[in-house]
Amino acid sequence: MTRAVELVSTGSELLSGRTLNRHAQVLGDHLHELGLKLLRDTTVPDDIDLIQEAIESALRRVDIVLVSGGLGPTSDDVTREAIAKMLGRTIVMDEPSVEALRQRFRRMGRAVTEQGERQARVVEGAAALSNSVGAAPGECIELDKKIIFVLPGPPREFLAVLEEHVIPWLKKNLDPIAKPAERMFLVCGLGESDIVLRFETAGFPPDGLDVAYSAAPGRVEIRIAAPPEKGKLVEDSGSEIRRLLGDNIFSEQPLEMEEVIGRLLVQQKATLATAESCTGGLIGHRVTTVSGSSNYYLGGVIAYSNDVKIRELGVSGETLKQFGAVSEAVAREMAVGVRQRCESDFGLAVTGIAGPTGGTPEKPVGLVFIALADRHTSWVKRIQFPGTRPWIKEWASQMALDLLRRRLIGVLKD
Amino acid sequence: MTRAVELVSTGSELLSGRTLNRHAQVLGDHLHELGLKLLRDTTVPDDIDLIQEAIESALRRVDIVLVSGGLGPTSDDVTREAIAKMLGRTIVMDEPSVEALRQRFRRMGRAVTEQGERQARVVEGAAALSNSVGAAPGECIELDKKIIFVLPGPPREFLAVLEEHVIPWLKKNLDPIAKPAERMFLVCGLGESDIVLRFETAGFPPDGLDVAYSAAPGRVEIRIAAPPEKGKLVEDSGSEIRRLLGDNIFSEQPLEMEEVIGRLLVQQKATLATAESCTGGLIGHRVTTVSGSSNYYLGGVIAYSNDVKIRELGVSGETLKQFGAVSEAVAREMAVGVRQRCESDFGLAVTGIAGPTGGTPEKPVGLVFIALADRHTSWVKRIQFPGTRPWIKEWASQMALDLLRRRLIGVLKD
Repeated sequence: MTRAVELVSTGSELLSGRTLNRHAQVLGDHLHELGLKLLRDTTVPDDIDLIQEAIESALRRVDIVLVSGGLGPTSDDVTREAIAKMLGRTIVMDEPSVEALRQRFRRMGRAVTEQGERQARVVEGAAALSNSVGAAPGECIELDKKIIFVLPGPPREFLAVLEEHVIPWLKKNLDPIAKPAERMFLVCGLGESDIVLRFETAGFPPDGLDVAYSAAPGRVEIRIAAPPEKGKLVEDSGSEIRRLLGDNIFSEQPLEMEEVIGRLLVQQKATLATAESCTGGLIGHRVTTVSGSSNYYLGGVIAYSNDVKIRELGVSGETLKQFGAVSEAVAREMAVGVRQRCESDFGLAVTGIAGPTGGTPEKPVGLVFIALADRHTSWVKRIQFPGTRPWIKEWASQMALDLLRRRLIGVLKD
Repeated sequence: MTRAVELVSTGSELLSGRTLNRHAQVLGDHLHELGLKLLRDTTVPDDIDLIQEAIESALRRVDIVLVSGGLGPTSDDVTREAIAKMLGRTIVMDEPSVEALRQRFRRMGRAVTEQGERQARVVEGAAALSNSVGAAPGECIELDKKIIFVLPGPPREFLAVLEEHVIPWLKKNLDPIAKPAERMFLVCGLGESDIVLRFETAGFPPDGLDVAYSAAPGRVEIRIAAPPEKGKLVEDSGSEIRRLLGDNIFSEQPLEMEEVIGRLLVQQKATLATAESCTGGLIGHRVTTVSGSSNYYLGGVIAYSNDVKIRELGVSGETLKQFGAVSEAVAREMAVGVRQRCESDFGLAVTGIAGPTGGTPEKPVGLVFIALADRHTSWVKRIQFPGTRPWIKEWASQMALDLLRRRLIGVLKD
């Protein structure tokens, strides 16, 4: 079996502008980890003939074909039908899958309808791949020297069946090959062009090193890679990147900032409370996305109105009047106040103007104050962010968590 | 020229997990507006033969083919080469494009390198399509009864050339057709299979009506469509859907739940405060994603620890001890407490077990209590959600906002 893979994504919604198809990226990423190559993604509408033709073409080119979508309960879900037609097989009910489906619904206090049970059908001769997060199982169809995996279309279910069944199968059945030497660095506090400038000034990267960047609000990902035999080049380049970017590197693993600060808080047995104005709860949401966050996150206050800032955080009405809600003084009082109220080790606060309205020449949209308080002292940072409302909220939450990170690793001095 | 279109997306980064391919969604959306259909997106790596083969296949099926990517200055940009090879043509420098490129660089205070000027080349006989936001022009290649558009790969440049050249060409050269008659319904409180069951029991949909579903946590989108001349069928079907699904329809426009409750709160001049345990700030974050939310959202408390529930929300220690933090009684006290503290018209609260740990046989992972309080009374709903931590948080936030919506439209009685 050759190591090339193709994906056939089915779904009219992927071609009408309604839904963004993320499968190729998710699959490509996983295959890359295994040293396998995704050679093509063919996206076709919910049409039996078009699906069949796309799968047949893919099977002519490669030995491993993944098909996504079209396994739901409705009449536009026709992927099983297309494959059955292609192979001249029937479609049969998979009893373990029906039972799993019934149990799933029972836990939710409901009964499965006959329509719902259609999702437990598989192509005759296929092995059902249990779906731990949804109703429709995936399928594995082994042909002579070829294999078809069928995965549900909803992204979460696609990922679950991919990780629980397809990847383990590929690991088991394909010979391992040497992976390229690689390293990743996640950076907060420097923009992509700042980083490139630092690199160029230092004559980095060296010949033969592949460097790729991708940027999100408050987060630049740098990946360096070279062929398997050039491990030393990658290691040396990693040291050079650490020297050039220093504490701005928040992780060398694929972790979100909230995971990084979560690990640091656990290590230091410290607790956190948050006071959010313009981020509106996003920091709390991000922190609590991490499983186990109840061990260090106590909670906090979303202080959107001035009254809530005064009553629930103890911000002084005088300070609000004198400096305005978006000010260094108010940010500091919010951080100090929430720490005292919640009796946490750290208080983290954000106040700013997320826009699109509410800006003035002195305090434009995107102006944000971020404050951190501990038992002894407090720090405030003023930042001006570009972009739209969601972008500003995202960016401010990232920079606030990064301020806490810098304190936790000891580079933010009293 | 038929009205079907295919897209060939080129770029190894689209298949290696590094970059998400958004072209199909952007193009599909624009074509849908014109009454055109995107029939397929074929994503292939930066390989001359694979690109050529994909374009040839597309041209066999449809008359209008768009090709994206591979127009940059580096050696892996080979889309021009693939098309030239396919057509037996040469590649030539496009003088107006070179001049535009030089001016562009002059404005940035730099000179174009010879390497950079390669981007101004086009396939012999092609019309260059000026790129207002990047270096490489697009191309329009008219063949006998067929047409190929070539667009740059960076999303911003793809969109600019699409909107400035391709869409105007399609509008001018294709006979306008009436758009299909369409309606959309967003539903919360019924699953996809519940909806299908209600439909089937009522003998819905009628012949000739196209029905498509897509589901997310606490949100099913139903789209019905029929050919332009069948407007009445779509209108009548819309009425039937309203009759069958009633108050579970939260919008007939593409709005998120937080936008729907935002509009209702503005209309009713009412204010909201939130008390979140397991959602950790997600409800506040969603509410404040809506511009203008400061007019009705006062803020709230993220009460992750029991101490914060007691101190900041006034939940009684007795209630916590007797019923536990995840209970109907605590949810109710949280909603009542946050409403009183923040002096809002409504208090919305969530407490639950987001997992993956912390579940017991009596209170399993996914058990969530949602409570709403107004000046006079309070309501609590117990729900058992399936899925993982992020999914449970998302779903619980959606159902909490929906509880408020039901009160605001007057279907949640005292």
